[in-house]
Amino acid sequence: MKIAIDAMGGDHAPKETVLGAQKAIEHFKNLHITLIGNEHEIKKYITNSERIDIIHTEEMIEATDEPVRAVKRKKNASMVLTAKEVSEGRADACISAGNTGALMAAGLFIVGRIEGIERPALAPTLPTIDGKGFLMLDVGANVDAKSSHLLQYAIMGSIYAEKVRNIPSPRVGLLNVGTEEKKGNDLAKQTFQLLSEANINFVGNVEARDLLDGVADVVVTDGFTGNIALKTIEGTALSLFSMLKSELTSNFKSKLAASVLKPQLKGLKTKMDYSEYGGAGLFGLKAPVIKAHGSSDATAMFSAIKQAVNMIENDVSKTIKTAIEEVYTESL
Amino acid sequence: MKIAIDAMGGDHAPKETVLGAQKAIEHFKNLHITLIGNEHEIKKYITNSERIDIIHTEEMIEATDEPVRAVKRKKNASMVLTAKEVSEGRADACISAGNTGALMAAGLFIVGRIEGIERPALAPTLPTIDGKGFLMLDVGANVDAKSSHLLQYAIMGSIYAEKVRNIPSPRVGLLNVGTEEKKGNDLAKQTFQLLSEANINFVGNVEARDLLDGVADVVVTDGFTGNIALKTIEGTALSLFSMLKSELTSNFKSKLAASVLKPQLKGLKTKMDYSEYGGAGLFGLKAPVIKAHGSSDATAMFSAIKQAVNMIENDVSKTIKTAIEEVYTESL
Repeated sequence: MKIAIDAMGGDHAPKETVLGAQKAIEHFKNLHITLIGNEHEIKKYITNSERIDIIHTEEMIEATDEPVRAVKRKKNASMVLTAKEVSEGRADACISAGNTGALMAAGLFIVGRIEGIERPALAPTLPTIDGKGFLMLDVGANVDAKSSHLLQYAIMGSIYAEKVRNIPSPRVGLLNVGTEEKKGNDLAKQTFQLLSEANINFVGNVEARDLLDGVADVVVTDGFTGNIALKTIEGTALSLFSMLKSELTSNFKSKLAASVLKPQLKGLKTKMDYSEYGGAGLFGLKAPVIKAHGSSDATAMFSAIKQAVNMIENDVSKTIKTAIEEVYTESL
Repeated sequence: MKIAIDAMGGDHAPKETVLGAQKAIEHFKNLHITLIGNEHEIKKYITNSERIDIIHTEEMIEATDEPVRAVKRKKNASMVLTAKEVSEGRADACISAGNTGALMAAGLFIVGRIEGIERPALAPTLPTIDGKGFLMLDVGANVDAKSSHLLQYAIMGSIYAEKVRNIPSPRVGLLNVGTEEKKGNDLAKQTFQLLSEANINFVGNVEARDLLDGVADVVVTDGFTGNIALKTIEGTALSLFSMLKSELTSNFKSKLAASVLKPQLKGLKTKMDYSEYGGAGLFGLKAPVIKAHGSSDATAMFSAIKQAVNMIENDVSKTIKTAIEEVYTESL
């Protein structure tokens, strides 16, 4: 199998991307990787070029670029060429740690949607207290969603959780303002009905308060709400860590005690670090497209590659295609 | 001035409610309080009945009652009679720590909306790292909101922040998935336009990630998104505290160090406890209606009473009425 990787995306590119790719090549013996970006920069970090190709380009999409325009105009950007490796059949999946909006645009316009999928969804795996994590989708690919989109997210998320995360009969919950059936805005109420009738293990509405307790394996929501929930989790965790730090270093005695607790505090931070769970998948496209976290180091990049490998091996895109076709056939 | 208080609402009623009322009477010399509920139970905790009246009733609304139905059918429930004290002119404001949905229904159907206000909004003050806090509205009074509702929330929130929280020219932000002007779903884009033209200090879109950093004094959003953001903050904080606790007690050495840090950790928890900031105001009604936190103790109840006193003294409802009239006059 072959994976195309945008070597220039992310805060620590190309170094950490290349190191992650190198690690993956050593780990997966049937894997080929194509790195796309500045060949001179990439080669600095390659110690073994076995099963690694490089496509040289000097153009790249910046974090500040307007996504759709950048993808359409920067025809030789590393991210655009990465997506083309997939759409032109030379790679089975692609990964970038660059501009999220641009990768969504490249996924949609270059890799393309699975027939029958109305909207792709961005789906990260977020941490839970028990360390198992849960999949949330959509977190921002589609901010004006309809209930039919959310039904497709639920099906795609369920397939991913089962095939890639090895969760039998994954519990699918609908993010809502209360657990009772009649709760929520019009979109949530309509979606509740659709999910109740779908061929998934729908466990009903779930509340934002219970997300990190692992109330469901797959949490379905519209891209606006999902993005707010995701960033609220991130922001609250960061703020608490920063408050904790300033409280713990407020005097000599507490500094001393805090230094003893360093491993524990670090352990907690690692538990909350969702780059451990791989990147966010862009679901509903013809092939796996993975958004690695912008701050990815070699380990996070390796996790994202492993995730892509799992998605390819388990034929997730094809399974989604078949499941969606079944939904449409049933409803005829 | 006179405040009516539902003595039977909340987890620690009537004891903590009565103790909080007693404390408020001692603090505010011009304050009269009417406690509504089981007279026998209430009297157990009253040590000084100066300026405290009791209206006896045995009916009450439970946390599990369906809100609208409960308010309509339980005509002698303590919460219903509390709201009636206001609507029939015998009190200037009312407070309950009971069923939130029922209080919103009682506020809407019994106290009534200010003329021109399309939808009331539920507005808690949430904690920030710097301890100043920010007002977020709406967090669930109205889950299917229009941009015209959000404009009114912005005006009401701005008035409250200025008059009651003493923030000159409060910064009003719109909760969105990015800070750029064109970001967001249709509702957010339309609201951005309206807020840009309004007579408030609109600072643009704010991201969920930056809420606890105090990015704005007033954060405006629809009730569905606001409820999700509020509960995500609560849930993430609770989960982190529970993870922190289990990490810190994982072995003898860390237990010892953690015991030294107890005051610091407690300080952090207090900072995150938004009951310190009073209750959530139900804005847009003819008189102040305050939802005290369900787990309110005497101190939290005192904070909610103090908040109601401030709202009455600063004539917040009348100021909102005038401001809304001005918006309509301008647009004619």
